[in-house]
Amino acid sequence: MALYVQKFGGTSVGSVERIKKVAERVGRYRQQGHDVVVVVSAMSGETNRLIDLAKQIHEEPSPREMDMLVSTGEQVTIALLAMALEQQGTPATSFTGAQVGILTDQAHMKARIKDIAVDQLRARLDQGRVVVVAGFQGVDEQGNITTLGRGGSDTTAVALAAALKADECQIYTDVDGVYTADPRICSAAKRLESITFEEMLELASMGSKVLQIRSVEFAGKYKVPLRVLSSFEDNEGPGTLIIADDEENPSMEEPVISGIAHQTNEAKLTVLGAPDIPGVAAKILGPISDQNIEVDMIVQNVSPDGKSTDFSFTVARGDYKKAEATLQQVVNELGAGKVVGDTAIAKVSLVGVGMRSHAGVASLMFQTLADNGINIRMVSTSEIKISVVIDEKFTELAVRTLHTAFGLDRQD
Amino acid sequence: MALYVQKFGGTSVGSVERIKKVAERVGRYRQQGHDVVVVVSAMSGETNRLIDLAKQIHEEPSPREMDMLVSTGEQVTIALLAMALEQQGTPATSFTGAQVGILTDQAHMKARIKDIAVDQLRARLDQGRVVVVAGFQGVDEQGNITTLGRGGSDTTAVALAAALKADECQIYTDVDGVYTADPRICSAAKRLESITFEEMLELASMGSKVLQIRSVEFAGKYKVPLRVLSSFEDNEGPGTLIIADDEENPSMEEPVISGIAHQTNEAKLTVLGAPDIPGVAAKILGPISDQNIEVDMIVQNVSPDGKSTDFSFTVARGDYKKAEATLQQVVNELGAGKVVGDTAIAKVSLVGVGMRSHAGVASLMFQTLADNGINIRMVSTSEIKISVVIDEKFTELAVRTLHTAFGLDRQD
Repeated sequence: MALYVQKFGGTSVGSVERIKKVAERVGRYRQQGHDVVVVVSAMSGETNRLIDLAKQIHEEPSPREMDMLVSTGEQVTIALLAMALEQQGTPATSFTGAQVGILTDQAHMKARIKDIAVDQLRARLDQGRVVVVAGFQGVDEQGNITTLGRGGSDTTAVALAAALKADECQIYTDVDGVYTADPRICSAAKRLESITFEEMLELASMGSKVLQIRSVEFAGKYKVPLRVLSSFEDNEGPGTLIIADDEENPSMEEPVISGIAHQTNEAKLTVLGAPDIPGVAAKILGPISDQNIEVDMIVQNVSPDGKSTDFSFTVARGDYKKAEATLQQVVNELGAGKVVGDTAIAKVSLVGVGMRSHAGVASLMFQTLADNGINIRMVSTSEIKISVVIDEKFTELAVRTLHTAFGLDRQD
Repeated sequence: MALYVQKFGGTSVGSVERIKKVAERVGRYRQQGHDVVVVVSAMSGETNRLIDLAKQIHEEPSPREMDMLVSTGEQVTIALLAMALEQQGTPATSFTGAQVGILTDQAHMKARIKDIAVDQLRARLDQGRVVVVAGFQGVDEQGNITTLGRGGSDTTAVALAAALKADECQIYTDVDGVYTADPRICSAAKRLESITFEEMLELASMGSKVLQIRSVEFAGKYKVPLRVLSSFEDNEGPGTLIIADDEENPSMEEPVISGIAHQTNEAKLTVLGAPDIPGVAAKILGPISDQNIEVDMIVQNVSPDGKSTDFSFTVARGDYKKAEATLQQVVNELGAGKVVGDTAIAKVSLVGVGMRSHAGVASLMFQTLADNGINIRMVSTSEIKISVVIDEKFTELAVRTLHTAFGLDRQD
């Protein structure tokens, strides 16, 4: 018999009916003799309702009071789910983050877990009860309620699984697993049986919004087997298992790449002809960072003449105008260079741990794009990822042709 | 400078606008240099919304989970009120019942306060902050969230005032004080400047729904000056101060009676000709109590023939049918007696500590009723109260004529 930590997000517990469905699913695991800890989010819409109330009162409410406020969302769900479990004959007890003893630092609204006390929780499991824990929240050393930030319920689940040494942490979501590409634009995309933490990290940061990045990092660090499953199917599928990469014993079958991610909500900016002297990158990016603009890809090529260089980076599309104005000032101050930019871009990335040991991934990628008349605007690579920036209009074409070229297409 | 504990109920914090009004009022006290602890209830409607969600899931939810659920109501209000105070420039910190350290017994949904730790709270007051505390809730020794039952926010306020040795506990409500009679049926009714705890207890239990009985008991026990005020007036009136009765130095001006209460939601039941033997009262009331029917007045007269007696009592009107059926069974088992009842009754009560030292209150009461053709069905007395049961149709007439007869009418 195994110990499972199961996490259900806001949509999965979005109504009384859906809470009852979750209780049925959890009850089935319990009936099979497994121990189950359930982590839940606030009912969908509830957190926004609370934030809206706060905004009507204060433009910038104190983070401590925001945490006090929004943490009630999960508290409602845990009580309702415990009731639903008991209604179905499954003994259950709910705990807030503070009651479990999820100790965090004092960074309200974005706290990080420092320690988890599992004694209370284990005692209830030993009594044959399902334990229902409020996700997303904890308590600091002074007893103030903290929250882990949006999506933090995944992190709660993984942290509990690590602390309890659970056999598996199951994240129920509105998709039935991790796909080789977005099925909405690539009909040949297929569900992955498994994927490594590293690949998942690259895919997650790329907009495959299946899991919170922090929870994947956490799971990787503590080697907690993580499974993504759908909470919307009655016939539960196996989902996708996210596991540690066994670098010393790579599988013979390991595919070169695991998936293709794409993102179309970025814009690119370039300073043409910036002086090629030490510190220029910091001079360009410092003011951007001061404006709280997050930068994704950064590309600087060698200076062809040793005097000036072109420096490019991408930002969220909504930040484009602010970034452009900031850069213009920088260029004025530098007394050199010119700002150009483009908002109609897409980023397409190949991800795969297999890439490490295979040459030729980049060349096949570039050749495939070229064969389809797609011009590459920027390139950036990491150990297990190659990203290119292309014109936005080519997004679907690029994803589909790369999916085929790398042998990812579903066979049925 | 004084220390005030101010309590605002659900209607007073029923919307964002009303929460801002409360913040303004609290802020004015703070600006005058007073220390203020604010106790709030859930926004009106919120507790019922939560209970309704629970009922959709479980007919009889576990009391522990109910407390987990409904305690979120006050937690939302404390966060919003703290934000509203800060928005208006008044530093404020909110605390849940558990965070303050309101330790209760384990009786979920009707817990009693055992102890209050005020260190955290005092520390914040010393920093010049307003402290906002969630009413109605506490925590048991195992860390489970408990609630004090409906209306328990008054009790929280009084208990905090006692623990902090506050100068006054101010209960803001939708009336501007305690009246000599219900102004809706007696236009001559006037607001009392002050009233004793004992009188308030008798009035409260009689349906003058100004304050929770338990909070008045508590205030009396710990001699916490309690003031009832309106939260709906912009020009704040003095309300009614509820104080300890100084029996050794009764005021010369002390009126014979302080107020007249009436209640029209009861029904009366009588067992005629019950055998006049020891234990018969228990035989009659035991089964009623087993059905969880609460009994108010109980009257048993001397047995005229030494063999049988008439035994009467009143119950809430909604329990009448169940009580009648139960009594019928009792009579069948006793093999004697007959059940009669009446639902169209009213209870009218005179309350006053002055009554203790004045003969003739009862006779003036009975004479006044007789002069107006009102027949008395039952009589019951306590040290500071006389209650009569009359036909419901005479309620207003009885209250008004008694109000005049006892010199309570407003003089303007």
